[in-house]
Amino acid sequence: MPSRLNVGVIGVGRMGHVYAANLAQRVPNARLVAVADQKADLAAACAKEFGIPRFYESHHDLLDDRDIDAVAVITSTSTHKEAIVDAARAGKAVFCEKPISLSLEDANEVLRVVEETGAFLQMGFQRRFDAAYVGARQKVEEGAIGSPVVFTSISRDPFRPPLEFCDPKISGGLIADMGIHDFDAARMYMGEAKTVHAIGGVLAYPEMREVGDIDNAIVNMVFESGTLGVVQLSRNAVFGYDIRGEIWGTKGTIQIGYFRQTPILVMTREGITHDAVPYFFERFESAYLTQIQDFVDRVLKSQGPSVTGADAVAAMRISLAANASFQEKRPVDIREVGALPAGARAESKS
Amino acid sequence: MPSRLNVGVIGVGRMGHVYAANLAQRVPNARLVAVADQKADLAAACAKEFGIPRFYESHHDLLDDRDIDAVAVITSTSTHKEAIVDAARAGKAVFCEKPISLSLEDANEVLRVVEETGAFLQMGFQRRFDAAYVGARQKVEEGAIGSPVVFTSISRDPFRPPLEFCDPKISGGLIADMGIHDFDAARMYMGEAKTVHAIGGVLAYPEMREVGDIDNAIVNMVFESGTLGVVQLSRNAVFGYDIRGEIWGTKGTIQIGYFRQTPILVMTREGITHDAVPYFFERFESAYLTQIQDFVDRVLKSQGPSVTGADAVAAMRISLAANASFQEKRPVDIREVGALPAGARAESKS
Amino acid sequence: MPSRLNVGVIGVGRMGHVYAANLAQRVPNARLVAVADQKADLAAACAKEFGIPRFYESHHDLLDDRDIDAVAVITSTSTHKEAIVDAARAGKAVFCEKPISLSLEDANEVLRVVEETGAFLQMGFQRRFDAAYVGARQKVEEGAIGSPVVFTSISRDPFRPPLEFCDPKISGGLIADMGIHDFDAARMYMGEAKTVHAIGGVLAYPEMREVGDIDNAIVNMVFESGTLGVVQLSRNAVFGYDIRGEIWGTKGTIQIGYFRQTPILVMTREGITHDAVPYFFERFESAYLTQIQDFVDRVLKSQGPSVTGADAVAAMRISLAANASFQEKRPVDIREVGALPAGARAESKS
Amino acid sequence: MPSRLNVGVIGVGRMGHVYAANLAQRVPNARLVAVADQKADLAAACAKEFGIPRFYESHHDLLDDRDIDAVAVITSTSTHKEAIVDAARAGKAVFCEKPISLSLEDANEVLRVVEETGAFLQMGFQRRFDAAYVGARQKVEEGAIGSPVVFTSISRDPFRPPLEFCDPKISGGLIADMGIHDFDAARMYMGEAKTVHAIGGVLAYPEMREVGDIDNAIVNMVFESGTLGVVQLSRNAVFGYDIRGEIWGTKGTIQIGYFRQTPILVMTREGITHDAVPYFFERFESAYLTQIQDFVDRVLKSQGPSVTGADAVAAMRISLAANASFQEKRPVDIREVGALPAGARAESKS
Repeated sequence: MPSRLNVGVIGVGRMGHVYAANLAQRVPNARLVAVADQKADLAAACAKEFGIPRFYESHHDLLDDRDIDAVAVITSTSTHKEAIVDAARAGKAVFCEKPISLSLEDANEVLRVVEETGAFLQMGFQRRFDAAYVGARQKVEEGAIGSPVVFTSISRDPFRPPLEFCDPKISGGLIADMGIHDFDAARMYMGEAKTVHAIGGVLAYPEMREVGDIDNAIVNMVFESGTLGVVQLSRNAVFGYDIRGEIWGTKGTIQIGYFRQTPILVMTREGITHDAVPYFFERFESAYLTQIQDFVDRVLKSQGPSVTGADAVAAMRISLAANASFQEKRPVDIREVGALPAGARAESKS
Repeated sequence: MPSRLNVGVIGVGRMGHVYAANLAQRVPNARLVAVADQKADLAAACAKEFGIPRFYESHHDLLDDRDIDAVAVITSTSTHKEAIVDAARAGKAVFCEKPISLSLEDANEVLRVVEETGAFLQMGFQRRFDAAYVGARQKVEEGAIGSPVVFTSISRDPFRPPLEFCDPKISGGLIADMGIHDFDAARMYMGEAKTVHAIGGVLAYPEMREVGDIDNAIVNMVFESGTLGVVQLSRNAVFGYDIRGEIWGTKGTIQIGYFRQTPILVMTREGITHDAVPYFFERFESAYLTQIQDFVDRVLKSQGPSVTGADAVAAMRISLAANASFQEKRPVDIREVGALPAGARAESKS
Repeated sequence: MPSRLNVGVIGVGRMGHVYAANLAQRVPNARLVAVADQKADLAAACAKEFGIPRFYESHHDLLDDRDIDAVAVITSTSTHKEAIVDAARAGKAVFCEKPISLSLEDANEVLRVVEETGAFLQMGFQRRFDAAYVGARQKVEEGAIGSPVVFTSISRDPFRPPLEFCDPKISGGLIADMGIHDFDAARMYMGEAKTVHAIGGVLAYPEMREVGDIDNAIVNMVFESGTLGVVQLSRNAVFGYDIRGEIWGTKGTIQIGYFRQTPILVMTREGITHDAVPYFFERFESAYLTQIQDFVDRVLKSQGPSVTGADAVAAMRISLAANASFQEKRPVDIREVGALPAGARAESKS
Repeated sequence: MPSRLNVGVIGVGRMGHVYAANLAQRVPNARLVAVADQKADLAAACAKEFGIPRFYESHHDLLDDRDIDAVAVITSTSTHKEAIVDAARAGKAVFCEKPISLSLEDANEVLRVVEETGAFLQMGFQRRFDAAYVGARQKVEEGAIGSPVVFTSISRDPFRPPLEFCDPKISGGLIADMGIHDFDAARMYMGEAKTVHAIGGVLAYPEMREVGDIDNAIVNMVFESGTLGVVQLSRNAVFGYDIRGEIWGTKGTIQIGYFRQTPILVMTREGITHDAVPYFFERFESAYLTQIQDFVDRVLKSQGPSVTGADAVAAMRISLAANASFQEKRPVDIREVGALPAGARAESKS
């Protein structure tokens, strides 16, 4: 393997642009060779902004590029399957933003092709590279809190997405779209889930009813070990981006999270005030960089992926079961939505 | 009515001693005239400590004391019914620590006698008098966070009670014994609950299995308005007493709670460390005083109670439904365990 | 000695009222027998409010009351000397709010009479009874931070006093009136001061110039051991009452202080806001009670005072030297303003 | 001007390596063309690590490189003068880490050459690019705290430097070496200083006496407007890196600073603990990048420097006056150490 990895980015919308910027400017052992986007003008603008040699409208053309060793798939979820499968068959190493797909059937097909082709596939769950989540895992492994017994995870967005993205047929809905990060973190600290029960509603944005999604939800989890979890999801954290977690153990607890973006405190007659973390770009800026750096390093060193496709499917099963629970107003056994794929390991390997 | 209220305390164990101390030394318009306890030596010691004129073994003797205008019932839950009923029939104003009884049948009988005799009955839910919970309610009423949509409440004890008190037949079990404070607070901010779903387990103290109780639980709530709630309960907050809450609204949120007892921060090579709130005495010291002061003031001014027996029953229904949900592993409609008693009003009147 | 101490309060203005309330309602082994105030109506109202048997216009009459064992002197500073001297000669135990007097001459005369009469005199420096300052001292004594090397103390009032009280001839001025608490704390942690240097100015309230006082000051200290200190004083903490301290050591540091009065956090689009401690009543409510309880206990048990008159003089010397430094724009040796009185011990005895 | 700036780094020790890494990997419109270091092996290793085309032992050779538009001087302070003067005469734009030199004479000579040659010289004071210090300035300019009246600044290192670097003849000593950042920040918020008074001592590391430096100091400042300041400096922040500030105003205050590096809180029986910011690399990582990006942008756009040589001299005057005050145990007028250079403007231009 060479000392630098030639990478192409497929999809340069909001998040794809972040990946392109990181690969072009901040991952020293990567060379961003090409970008592709169905919106050709986006691809062209991105190439110009970062001085990227080539850009394409079709990801097929990018995959035909013999210079390219690896691709980052940052398209909308509905196209993940096609892009991963095509890239795997073209012999490229693949990084793909979560979730792996919208349906379990598609996800399983991806896993099959990855196995068949022996392709390198690493899934993006950036919290696994965030200093707080990593630090918490280290503390847990050191035994600082004894044995973990309850996992709490809060994910709250500062506003709702545009209605067209809220459609559960496109995004998977609140529980799958946002919750999958929490379900992945839950696996990392607590192992596999056994049953889930979800409640939720349209409580802040009445217009969500038009597209059939909800804006607030609470999901209870029982893990296979008998330990417990609760995930809170919301689209109306109007003050900022609210991401927190707790691993509650027999000998102590670890709280993850913070509210302050800038370390200044303004104290006036009106009260003592500080700012909040605005959104996920700011909260996870370092984690996104560390994550794609990790992918590049692993491909160059021929190491296995830190987060596998099977891990992505394992998280997806939980979100599908939670969706079913919410619809049917009853606790749902995860196995109802399908078996745990071979190769899924709850503990992170990063 | 006179300017000072002559009060007797029935039950001077751990909490009864706190009430006796407050009534004897810190409630200026009360005169603690007598105490009673089945353990006569406890009653005698308490009377001696606070210079209380008379003490009794039987609450009947105390109720016969013509000087006494009002009683505080701080006995174990299983004797609440008898003490309240006897006091009501003796024409005394009654303050009673939560919960009102162990069974709904007993509670309803108490309500019936109270109505029949026209007795003044005020129930103790001290969080309703805590500066943080009161301040949060004021902010909510002022519209600071828009409309409340999700209520979160965490109650975690620093250790488990002696096993004999863990027996659900005596204490009601974790969900009823601890959770009733959270369910009462839930009503205060969110109105009446419609369904609950509880999960839990023996995760920290294996010996809890002997008495049939659990040490950790999570209870999800759906309120009649469609809004949501989640209550976390635990007996293993080994670092201290962990009481927190959040009222999550459409235009903001209010977080309740703090971890520090002493405002000092020790910063050494080992890290930056502060202490925690040790236990409920320290956390709610002021609230207990404010609560019994409120009772005395209301009796003297012939005002109605701030927390009624019907309120206590309303909170109990939630805990009974949550217990049933945990046993039967399904969401339970609150109405399954009985109708909301007349006179229960979710909003506090204090 | 009897089991209860009969106490009289001399001076029932703002602070005297607090002492009267504590002695009447919250110090169980004290009996508040009488109050005196030059404003007879204040004394009468106070007696009525707390059901105190007798009230007087003149402190002489109160001192003639044979029932009274001890007095608390809470008058304006200019009358402290007379009240203490008269009380000492009348054979009463004396508690006196800081400062002991406005001039060193008066203070020394008080000390002389106290020695002559063998009277019990305890001075009020309530921070010595505050949980944070006490906790910090314990940590320091346990060696948690190694050897203390720099002491920082911040005292900032939420508003300026009425102009008539700002007159340095009455109050001693900002540096003496406010700073004396910080200088006393400095002695407690660091030992005796050697030199001070003060800077200050009229920076927030131009009208302070009329009375010849300043509204902000910074006082540097060098202690006899060569260690350092800095005291910040201000009258314009418009957001609330700002009392903080730090004991900086060779192996760590202890920070004292907090800003929040109520443990609630309001998070809206405008930012994340909490309240502040309003003023010294709220900040030191417990400390004032503990302090007067300590006085009553010590008199009843015939123990020596926790804070002596000599301690009060030692703190006063520092404030007088700081005032001289500010006037003369040069570092001033504490000994320039007089010798350390016999019996002053920097470490607290409480 | 081209769209990318060709830069050379002179001095690739600890800090020079940080600048080289930023310029090579994170400043997209810079091309790091060469590095130079008296230790040729350091230069070689750095060139290899970052794939830099050329490296030199002598800065003269680097300055002869016709490709190079600009240089960053990150050598030890004693060689700043020569490097800046040579670079200015070679027609390069110059960025130089603070302080500009060890003596005022050298600094003034640098200013003279810069004026003569018309060279672009920007000084490095990274706090001016830190989000907290920038945010505080914006708040002050918006009037959030009224008029600033007291400035507080704390700079405390987690350990002492190697003794050879403590020698005041090399480093300038604690007050000049560390304090210059605080004095620069003081100018930014409060304007020019008028008098200073410094106290200090060897309180934590007795071996500092050997080299004639101190390890703790407090510097009081009076500004030309009559407002006040205090700077605390220490080498024994054993728990981590302690950088804080406060701008105290007539209508409120702004507190700058934080202690936590990782947003996790560990709560066990031993207390509630979090980590600290380890050192300045971690605290100011973003500020160093923003600062050198600012330099590159300004040179490319032919804008003036954000921090001038005259600004560096203005800060140096304060530290020299503070050193004199400490030696002579008296307040020192800043003008005693020389006039304010033409072109110094207390307010930042960035």
